[in-house]
Parts: sequence; C-alpha cells; structure tokens
Amino acid sequence: MSEKCILLDHGSGGLASQELISSLFIKHLDNPTLRGLEDSAVLDRQNGRLAFTTDSYVVDPIFFPGGDIGKLAVHGTINDLAMRGAQPLCLSLGLILEEGMPLDDLERIIISIAEACRESGVPIVTGDTKVVPKGKGDKIFINTSGIGVVADGIDISSKNAREGDIILLSGTMGDHGITIMTRRAGIAMQGQLESDTMPLHRLVARLLKELPGSVRTLRDPTRGGVATTLNEIAANSQLGIELREESLPVRPQVRAACELLGLEPLYLANEGKLLAVVASDRAEEALQIMRETAEGAEATIIGRMFNGKAGRVVINTPVGGLRVVTPLHGEPLPRIC
Amino acid sequence: MSEKCILLDHGSGGLASQELISSLFIKHLDNPTLRGLEDSAVLDRQNGRLAFTTDSYVVDPIFFPGGDIGKLAVHGTINDLAMRGAQPLCLSLGLILEEGMPLDDLERIIISIAEACRESGVPIVTGDTKVVPKGKGDKIFINTSGIGVVADGIDISSKNAREGDIILLSGTMGDHGITIMTRRAGIAMQGQLESDTMPLHRLVARLLKELPGSVRTLRDPTRGGVATTLNEIAANSQLGIELREESLPVRPQVRAACELLGLEPLYLANEGKLLAVVASDRAEEALQIMRETAEGAEATIIGRMFNGKAGRVVINTPVGGLRVVTPLHGEPLPRIC
Repeated sequence: MSEKCILLDHGSGGLASQELISSLFIKHLDNPTLRGLEDSAVLDRQNGRLAFTTDSYVVDPIFFPGGDIGKLAVHGTINDLAMRGAQPLCLSLGLILEEGMPLDDLERIIISIAEACRESGVPIVTGDTKVVPKGKGDKIFINTSGIGVVADGIDISSKNAREGDIILLSGTMGDHGITIMTRRAGIAMQGQLESDTMPLHRLVARLLKELPGSVRTLRDPTRGGVATTLNEIAANSQLGIELREESLPVRPQVRAACELLGLEPLYLANEGKLLAVVASDRAEEALQIMRETAEGAEATIIGRMFNGKAGRVVINTPVGGLRVVTPLHGEPLPRIC
Repeated sequence: MSEKCILLDHGSGGLASQELISSLFIKHLDNPTLRGLEDSAVLDRQNGRLAFTTDSYVVDPIFFPGGDIGKLAVHGTINDLAMRGAQPLCLSLGLILEEGMPLDDLERIIISIAEACRESGVPIVTGDTKVVPKGKGDKIFINTSGIGVVADGIDISSKNAREGDIILLSGTMGDHGITIMTRRAGIAMQGQLESDTMPLHRLVARLLKELPGSVRTLRDPTRGGVATTLNEIAANSQLGIELREESLPVRPQVRAACELLGLEPLYLANEGKLLAVVASDRAEEALQIMRETAEGAEATIIGRMFNGKAGRVVINTPVGGLRVVTPLHGEPLPRIC
C-alpha cells in the first residue's frame, strides 16, 4: 500500500469505504462481533452494572517514543473504565481521517491498535470512519468509547475518599507529557524520554480482588496531571489533600527536561499511571500489591486525605514549608493526548 | 457568551475545561449520571443483550435546514442501535473543537443535542472535549457512541433476510443528502429542502412489538443511500433484491434538485428513514403500522428478496426494463454526515 493515500472516497460509505474496512480494519482487528459489520455490535448479556466512557485522541505527533495515537486510544479508554473498578469488555473505534494521509501510516496505527487490543484482551467490536478534506483535519483523530462491567459490591468514585485515607501513585509523573512536549519542541534529550502509555485494568483488578472495600477512589492523572486530578478528588470528596513533596516520583531525565522547559511534573499528562485512595490500614498492602506488578513497580505513597479546607491540595516541602497546589489553568502545550 | 471563542485552554483538562463543562455541558445536558463527571459513567445492570455502536459526524455546514450536526449525532447513533432491534439506553458525546469556534455556535449545538436527547428519551451520560489549533480541524466534529438493550428473542440482522421477504422503506429518499449538497452548492431551491434527521427507535419498537419474529432486517440508509444499503443486505443474505422503480418515493423538490445536479436519489444519504425486510405474510401489516406513525407516514413497499444472483440488486423500470443497481463508488460530495 506504499505511497497510497486516504481519499475522500474512503469516507463515502460506498465501495472505497468497504475496501478500507476489509483490507485494513477486518484484516488486523478481526473478531466475530466486528466481522458482522452491522449498524451496531450485539454483545452477550452482562452480569453486573455497566461502565461507559468515551475519549477522543488528537495527539500531535501521532507517532512518539513509547507509542502512537492508536495505542494511546486503546489504553486511555481501558483505563477510564478501570478507574470505576470496571472490567473492560470492548471498545468502539471512530476514525476521522484527513484526505491525503498516507495509507501506510494508517495501517501502522491500525496494527498498533490491534496489538494493544490483543495485549489488553479488550477487542474493538464496532467502528466508523469519516474522511475530511485536506486542511480540515490533521492526519488522524481517534475516538474510542468503551463498555466495562462493574462487579457487585464494587463502588469506586472520587466522592468516596475519606479522612485519613492514603493516596498512592502507581509510578513516576510526567513521562507521557514531557515526551510529547520535547518531541514537538525538537529538544535533543528526547531520546531518553518515553511515553508511559499502558493499560491499568489488570493492576486494578488485582487491587480490587485483594483489598475489597478498602479501595475508595481510582483516577488516572492524564490531562492536567497529578495536580489537577488530586484537586478533583479533593473537591468531590469535600476534603483536603496533603502531599509529601519528597515522595513524588519523577524520572531524572523528566525532571531535567521540565527544568529546561520551565514545567512542573505535577501538571504533566500521564497515560499509564493511577492514583489510588486506600483505607489507611490497608495502604501498605496496596503498595506491596502494586509493586509486585509491572504496571506499579515504582508505586509510592504520596499523601493523605485530611480534614483540611474542602477541595484544597497542599504540599509539604522538604524544608518544612507548605504550598497550595492549584488545578491547571493555562495549557502549556495542546494536543498531548 | 457572545463574541467569545473556543481557546486551546478549553481542551487542557484544567480550569477552562471545567468551566466549559459546567457552563455549557452540565447546564444543558444535565442528568444524575453525567453530573458525576467521573472517568466513566456507571449504569444499572441491564436485562438483555447489549447493542454498542459509534459514529463520528463531520457534516459541513454544521447548521442546515431541518437540523444541525448535534441533532444529527444524537439521531444517527440512536438509529444505529435501533437497527439491531435495540432499545437505546444512553449515549456518549465526544467533541473535537477547532480553536476560534464561536462559543455561541457551540452553545446552539449543545442546546440542540439536549433537545434531541429529551425528545428521544436517551440521555448523554459521559463525554470528552478536545481542542485542536485553528486550521487543524473544522469548527466541530462530534462522536456519539451508544448502548442499547436487545430484548430476548429479538434477532435483527442483514443476514436474516429470506427469499420472498418484502422490503419496505419508511419514507422518501434523499432529503438529507440533497439538503446538504444544495446548501453547499448555494443553489436557490434550498429553501424548499429539509433534512429528514429523526430518531427511529419508537417506530422500530412498535414494529417489533406488533410483528415479533416477522421483521428480519432493519437498516438506515445513510451514507451511500438506499442503493448501497440494499446491496449490503443482498450480499449479507446471499440473495438478490428486486425493486419496483415506480414505488421508490422521492419528494418532487428533491427530484428536481437531483436532476439539476445530475444525482440519483437512490445514492443520497437519509438520516430519518429505515429499510425493513419483513416476512411476506406480514408485509401489509408492517406497512400499516409504519403509516400510523409520524416517522413512517409515507412508508411504501419498494421490493422483495428473491432467489437471484446473490448480492445483486435489480430494478424493474416502468417500461419493463431491468437494470442493476450497484453500490456507491465515487463520493459525489464529502461530509454529508
């Protein structure tokens, strides 16, 4: 398919669309439900409540160290389901392609989506493709929506955090955000940086299995970073959050790039990390469980919920100071995910 | 909010995003599930199989006689669910906004989405907004994904059509497609033309309730029109389809515009029509049921499934001729939906 491009015809719903579907989508993403190619996929009856989520991905560049827009779209939506304690069941795939996009690039992305689906065990069961004229889009935008199943007794919500609960972060901050930013800025250190894009549903399943009832809140700190997500947890639970600055994990190369660009890792997007609020008597256990997994090998306890000003996040600095961590305002660079 | 515009900041995930969410989305689309603003919506356990579908909308212009991109996005996804015999349960809303889009236009679209949801009884329960820089999108692209519930015993599929089954069309052809095309071409007769965008789930529910087991296939002939959809039904059922040309309903003003532009109504997109394949002994009843509804008041029998060449659609012309109706190849004009 080299040197071939996406044409407006590929979005017509006619023969060119069908060719794209069979030569690319069915070829790589095949499964019995998708193969039906009906107006909707029909899935078996599910034994539990349903989780439902949607996310559009407009990241620029579409290929970056550690991943690409396709992998991000699969992992991101799986993670949004997992953050309610749901077992992800299936995804939809909505593509908006720009006329002139190389078919090779599209195939590379579809193959990456297929790999991410296989590795995660979560299939694409329904899809849609539109094409916009050159200059009216930017190569490819992807929407993935997803359905998950929430087992009985599971109740994970950012409202559920209680006073005294401990906050864990499953790994280092800012890897995805800084990778995209340095790549866009063309900064040389980019070779050492890599997106952390990763599915977190297995880590979540393990936490919920081993610590039923003790996990109150799960959130993945994507856009707006750990700082913004913690502010949302504090606001929704009507509690304060206290962080220990020295416990906030950042890779040295991420810290170096942040210093160069004048950025704060607390506000950078992560695509393979979660924040967990856990009952204090089970926090050490939760930490051990996380550290036994590949996804959470670098997990740390970063703070606690306390009866401070509702919705306020404060940080204890190593020199004994205290500063308020506000939510993100002012986008440092758009199109991070 | 007049004269205000979408900024990159509105897609940051930070304060500007939250302001947009509360001042627009929650204000107009509010319901208890959406209000949670968690990573996923959590829905009650459902009593039946699930239907799941996704569609992105890139129509240009975004406002047109009879509707707008928002209404289209709600109706289109509801209809895709209904075409598998599902009762639509809820929708997701994924927006990709272009920097500089007037906030007034966005609010007008969100209000239209809210009205369409209210009228259809199908809420938006989860959403996502991204912003791309000016020139990297085109005002607004919308993805709506949807979940529906398929009651036990319902099995609607384009594979299920049988020899001798009768094909009904719920109304006139081409209204949506020609409305968009004439508007884009700036043709004067546009005043008389109007999109047929409409939710069809209530019409489907009535057909399935009154004729259980006799409705084999339901499809909404959107992109590619009635001709392309019938070709898909013929291919999936491994049968031929025979149409009576004089029975194909087209409004006079649509026909006039088609003649002017050299277009064939059979290939034009519809956004509020369905094709139903029904057992021959219940076809007249199905027609009566359709005609009793607002959605199907102009329904007609247009043809039948026959043991001809598998996958081939032929048309009997009034002068006794026969011609083959191929699927669409070559997009007459992109971004119809």
